[in-house]
Parts: sequence; structure tokens; C-alpha cells
Amino acid sequence: MAEFISESVSFIGAGNIATYLAMECYRAGHQINMVWSRTPTNAKELAVKVNARWCKEINEINCDNCILIIALTDQATIDIAKNNDFGRSLVLHTAGSIPMDVFSGHSEDYGVLYPLQSISGKEMPVNSDVPLCIESNTESGLERLRRLAESISPLVYEISSENRLLLHLAAVFACNFPNYLYAIAGEIADKAGVPFEIYKPLIRETTENALSRGPLKAQTGPAVRNDRIIIKKHLDLLSFSPEYRNIYSSITRSIMDKHWLAGKKII
Amino acid sequence: MAEFISESVSFIGAGNIATYLAMECYRAGHQINMVWSRTPTNAKELAVKVNARWCKEINEINCDNCILIIALTDQATIDIAKNNDFGRSLVLHTAGSIPMDVFSGHSEDYGVLYPLQSISGKEMPVNSDVPLCIESNTESGLERLRRLAESISPLVYEISSENRLLLHLAAVFACNFPNYLYAIAGEIADKAGVPFEIYKPLIRETTENALSRGPLKAQTGPAVRNDRIIIKKHLDLLSFSPEYRNIYSSITRSIMDKHWLAGKKII
Repeated sequence: MAEFISESVSFIGAGNIATYLAMECYRAGHQINMVWSRTPTNAKELAVKVNARWCKEINEINCDNCILIIALTDQATIDIAKNNDFGRSLVLHTAGSIPMDVFSGHSEDYGVLYPLQSISGKEMPVNSDVPLCIESNTESGLERLRRLAESISPLVYEISSENRLLLHLAAVFACNFPNYLYAIAGEIADKAGVPFEIYKPLIRETTENALSRGPLKAQTGPAVRNDRIIIKKHLDLLSFSPEYRNIYSSITRSIMDKHWLAGKKII
Repeated sequence: MAEFISESVSFIGAGNIATYLAMECYRAGHQINMVWSRTPTNAKELAVKVNARWCKEINEINCDNCILIIALTDQATIDIAKNNDFGRSLVLHTAGSIPMDVFSGHSEDYGVLYPLQSISGKEMPVNSDVPLCIESNTESGLERLRRLAESISPLVYEISSENRLLLHLAAVFACNFPNYLYAIAGEIADKAGVPFEIYKPLIRETTENALSRGPLKAQTGPAVRNDRIIIKKHLDLLSFSPEYRNIYSSITRSIMDKHWLAGKKII
């Protein structure tokens, strides 16, 4: 890990990601300079937490040679990037799906600091290691960004815009979709008159098993057993919801194709 | 919890579920009498662990008034149930999808002891609380089964055969399918040149968030944000696999239908 150099960091945005990054930078010993948000009370709230100042107008941010982090929704990030000139600051956005070049022509040094985590509360647990994906248009910018990132997380990856988009897509499969399948499980359990809580040990065990053995090896269930009698029973039970039936079929078919070839198990 | 009464328990089968149940019964203070398996070395291995005897022929199991637990694959369970007479024992199977009545006419007291857990190794961690679903054809059988189940787990649920089938279906959504989505995420991450490990913090956080807040409230991602620009980008990226594209579409459509009605967020 590179030597620590204290940076001056300002934030455009005061939501979950801005709050997480500002708190971590502040804890690591960086100086948080200015916070702007469309909602001034949010800017003020974050500024107080990290001993910074807040401002009402975006052009009040005086960020000469500082690091400026834009942490907003995708559309707002694009709007801000395209309608401002960021002078001599290293300007970063935090979005999974916006190319770095959104800043092209608006700054000399720019880049991306994308935390690969679903940050749903305004405070992450201290010491939770969030992977940070970084990218910059210059070598010096990348070096500076890497130092900053490594000062707040041990998991820092250099990722191109193209690959960041893939990572974001994979995160939808790893996080958003499993969560929705839990919701479906809860709804079916409810039909059986039992609370979703009955699945807690199973879900925790499955997750840890996938993470330790790797999900391909850890696959269980009727599809990987090629148990067509059970699959037929399940599809019949799902007649109450064509959508759930469709989800069941599409995943089951894909598991079978992945693990079986012409009746022979291949994984 | 009911008073502890030591039972004499025998096992047909010596795989993961038989081993788990036999070890737990033994630890709880029950006497394990006999173990049979189609593979004698497996029967012997389990018998040694729980201070029991093993036998080569199924009819050597002398189980008068004992509890006999059949823990085999679905088809083997059905075959054994239909081709034997279980006399005065309380005979149980452990399958999620087989009705209790498979024993009808072959025993007076019968039932089901279904552990709602993906037991993939031969030993579960001590004190992991596995939910046990129980069912019996008589009140006295149910009482006896409940005592046994409560002696090895604090999570005991009385569940009918019909509802057990629903629970098993829900477990596929809660466990087998999320595991497969992790495998897809790993494959996409691989395309981006990063290891699956990068998702570990995200997956753990998502799982715990779903379990503590409930998955409906915890839903994040482009579908629940109704972010059609990102969804379009993701579908384009998935052109390399019609199957993954199909899974992405079916889940995304269902999330949108659940959370949005005529453009208005409803959850």
C-alpha cells in the first residue's frame, strides 16, 4: 500500500454513497472541504458529520487542485458532468454504468471511484471492506486515486469503463435478483402458512456455501439433479403466477443446460 | 418444550440427511439402534459414529416400537415405503416432496420429518438451528415426533404434506436459484477480468439486509428504480447468452410488475 498523503476532498451529493465515502475519507485522515446537495439540509447534515462546510450553489465549491467526488443518480451525474468545468481538480463520479469519458473536455484529470456495494443506509459498518473500482484518464490521476482508495479500503481494483458496466450487470445477478427470489420464496411460504423466517438458516448456509466452495460446485436442487418429476410438480404449483412460472422455467432450463449435456452430467 | 423421553431410533439410509439426523439424535441422548444402507460401508461408517449396529439386509432391522427414519432419494424412499411392512414402529421419511400417505397401509403410525436445510456435508456445525417440519397420521405419532424433533432443534413446525410441497418449492427460490445467479455473476465478472470474490461483501450484505428488513423492502437495482436506460444496456451486454438474457428479462419484468402499477410505485 502506498504512503498516506492527506487530500482535500469535496462532494457533490449527500446521499448514501457520498455519505459513505465522505465518512471513510474523513476517518482515514483526509480533509473534507465542501459538500453541495440539491437539498441543502442533506448537505448540512453530511458537512457536520465530517467537519466540512456546505454550500447552496454548486459554483461555490472552490476545489482548486482538490479531489471532487460526484455521487448522484445516473442522470444527475451526467447533467452535472456535462454542464460544468472542473478546472484543475481531479473530478470523479461513483456510478457503475456511466463511462469515464462523460468528463472529457470538462477537466484535465478525471476518473471513477465506484464502490461495489449496495449502500442502502447512510452509514456502513466501520471496517466493512467495500471493493472500490477505480479508473482515470491520466497516470498521475490514477496514482492519486489509487492512494485515496487504498486509504479507505484494502480491496481496490483498476477497472475500465467497459468492464465496470459488466461488473454492474453481474452485481444485478449477485444481489438484486437473489433478493427478489427471496421475496418470491416469502410469498410462497406465506401460502403454506409459515413465516419467511423459516428460511433464514437455509439462506445463510446457501450463501456461505456458494462463497466458500464457489457457486458452480455448490449447486443443489431438482434442476441439477435432473429431477423432472419434481420440476413438473413445481411448475404445476406455480400456476397461480405465470411470471413466477416463467422465472422458474428460465433458471431451471439454464441450470440443466449448464450442468447436463445429452443426459450426461458435465459439471 | 416437552419433557425429554429417550427413543430408540433406526435409520434406512446413511447419506447426508441420515447422518445429520442420527448425529443430532445421538447427541440429544437417544439410542441409535440400527443403520441400513444399500452401500454397507456407508452404513458401517455411520453406525460407528453413533454407537449403533449396522445390517446388510433391510429386514434385519428389528424396530418394534422404535422410530424408523427413511432418509434416501425420493425414488428410493417411495420404493422402500411401498414394498415393506413397518409393523409397530413409527416410520418417517425426510423428503420435501413426497406425501405422508406413501406409508398408508404399510404402518399404523407414520409421518414425515423434513429438515428445511440444504445438508451438503455429512456433518452440520453443532448448534446450527435447522428448521424441522413434522407431520403424522395420528395424534400420538405427532406427539412422539414433536418430542423427538424438539430434542434436536428449537425450530419445529407442524406442516401438512400439501404445504410441505410449497415449502420445498419456496426453498428452490430461496436457495438453489440464488446460488445459480451467483454462478452467472461469476461468469460475467470473469469476462470483466475480476474474480468472483469481489462480490463477497456485496452478497453477504444483500443477504443480511434481506433477512433483517424483509426482501420486499430491501429491493434495490435498476428494475425497482424503473431505470429503463440501464436495463436496455444490460440486455445488450447479455447478447452473448440468450438464456441469461431470458432470466434477466423474466425477473426484471416481475420486479417491475410487483413494485410499479401504471407508472406509480406501489411498494
